[in-house]
Amino acid sequence: MKSGIDVLIHEVGPRDGLQSIKTIFPTEVKLKWIRDEAAAGVPQIQVGSFVRADLLPQMADSGEVVREAIKVPGLTVSALVPNLKGAQMAMDAGAHQLGVVMSVSEAHNKANINRTVEESLDAFKQIVEYRNEVDPEKNTVISGGLATSFGCTIAGPTPVKDVMKRAEQLLERGADRLNVADTVGYANPKQVKDLFEELFRTVGRDVPVGAHFHDTRGMGLANAFAAVEAGVRELDGCLGGLGGCPYAPGASGNVVTEDMVFMLEAMGMKTGVDLDALMAVREYMVQHLKGEPTQGTYVQAGPPLGFVPATHAA
Amino acid sequence: MKSGIDVLIHEVGPRDGLQSIKTIFPTEVKLKWIRDEAAAGVPQIQVGSFVRADLLPQMADSGEVVREAIKVPGLTVSALVPNLKGAQMAMDAGAHQLGVVMSVSEAHNKANINRTVEESLDAFKQIVEYRNEVDPEKNTVISGGLATSFGCTIAGPTPVKDVMKRAEQLLERGADRLNVADTVGYANPKQVKDLFEELFRTVGRDVPVGAHFHDTRGMGLANAFAAVEAGVRELDGCLGGLGGCPYAPGASGNVVTEDMVFMLEAMGMKTGVDLDALMAVREYMVQHLKGEPTQGTYVQAGPPLGFVPATHAA
Repeated sequence: MKSGIDVLIHEVGPRDGLQSIKTIFPTEVKLKWIRDEAAAGVPQIQVGSFVRADLLPQMADSGEVVREAIKVPGLTVSALVPNLKGAQMAMDAGAHQLGVVMSVSEAHNKANINRTVEESLDAFKQIVEYRNEVDPEKNTVISGGLATSFGCTIAGPTPVKDVMKRAEQLLERGADRLNVADTVGYANPKQVKDLFEELFRTVGRDVPVGAHFHDTRGMGLANAFAAVEAGVRELDGCLGGLGGCPYAPGASGNVVTEDMVFMLEAMGMKTGVDLDALMAVREYMVQHLKGEPTQGTYVQAGPPLGFVPATHAA
Repeated sequence: MKSGIDVLIHEVGPRDGLQSIKTIFPTEVKLKWIRDEAAAGVPQIQVGSFVRADLLPQMADSGEVVREAIKVPGLTVSALVPNLKGAQMAMDAGAHQLGVVMSVSEAHNKANINRTVEESLDAFKQIVEYRNEVDPEKNTVISGGLATSFGCTIAGPTPVKDVMKRAEQLLERGADRLNVADTVGYANPKQVKDLFEELFRTVGRDVPVGAHFHDTRGMGLANAFAAVEAGVRELDGCLGGLGGCPYAPGASGNVVTEDMVFMLEAMGMKTGVDLDALMAVREYMVQHLKGEPTQGTYVQAGPPLGFVPATHAA
């Protein structure tokens, strides 16, 4: 964690946001977005995904984006990698952190990446072994992502014990950190608080744990608050709430970065982010969206009278 | 509290919602809304406001609405009253509960009802004395409302000690219960939790306390969750999120009843409300809105797969 920060904001818009919309952002636009958001104080950005370009043309330039993004001083550059090949490409490009995701739900994992969860665990282990071989000092961090931790659109509720089991298995296979995701927008804040409390009891307080929420049922910020209450200190967000849930047409996407930053700062928790600068980045991003919808309340309501962000407080 | 209910939903749409929009609902439409929402299990509805009809023509039929609404079996009928005259009219009509609101912020109280807070406290005492005189058994409940408890668009932040002081003064003057309101959508969930914990320490756990939130900055449900965490067991909501904040154009209004019911039921807290029936009432209400906007996520996303509402669980 950067010094002076209480909660780490992990912006996933350039990956999770852009891969969910129709518009393809030119590389230079992605890079200006990333540079400006880093300059606004966002400490970590997921800038791309190393998948097949024919499947996700929006992500085809991820290598180039990573190569440029790592030049931004102080920014932690993360990238999503689906398999060993993707991990190799991301590491070749110089990514600081690899996000490797599997679903806790067997059915969702099968539908999403056509693997059993055990096969995903094997693939995860391969990636860790590759990293350990080429980067014995482990400068490249590997995050183990647990999708559908709060429910699944195919299998319904996800048992908490399944999440614990998979979390432990990822750590046994060398995950440096975990990311627990409400992939399909099913979580409620009580469930979030209970699950993270159980997770910290299970894996200990020393494992860095991030949380990823969607606002599908209006509880994105409630869930973020509940996660923070339980001790989570890293939260994913998408500027403008980009990124839909493919299984819930019309529902909103990822939790809105700027709204979450406002909430945290209002609660007295430092994010290191300058909200005015962040809103300028949002405006730049929106200009390139070609009319695709965004989410967010701070953009409409602005700050309350007398608001002093924690980051700027004495 | 009705038996078998964990959290009491207080629907304020027919008052707070309708007084904030252009459309004037015919009395019969209001009554069908109220009857159907009560039939859906909502135990308490604020059906009108006894203000001057020339100021709020939407509320001109409040007497008739109360007279009819009290015939609905099991429904607690509340009404907003600005002064003694309004209280007399509401009691004449047979309202079960009177909501009497003053602002904790001196500046907001002056701007809103042209009184000092002390004058509002005197007026509150008059209303209680009148009630005690004509209704010595105190069947008619008087709720003391504390507006701008989380901040004010004129004065900025509201000191917690001011809220405590005014809460105690309302109780000293005979309030049967309190309603703590984030009138202008300034609250964040940490602030909510801290304030209600302090309030329960100050006035004790025996005083029924309701909470009223707006979704102006996307934290309506987060604040509702925080209030429940702190021990609040009564929440105001507006079906479809009706009711804007006049000081935040474009921002959304009251916390969305149906989204809040979904959240509570998903968290295992019984509201007694049938969500399907509630959504049918929402649909009826929307048909009469003449295109005025509504809010809500449940209407778009629906229930998660395998969702069992607490109210219907074994």
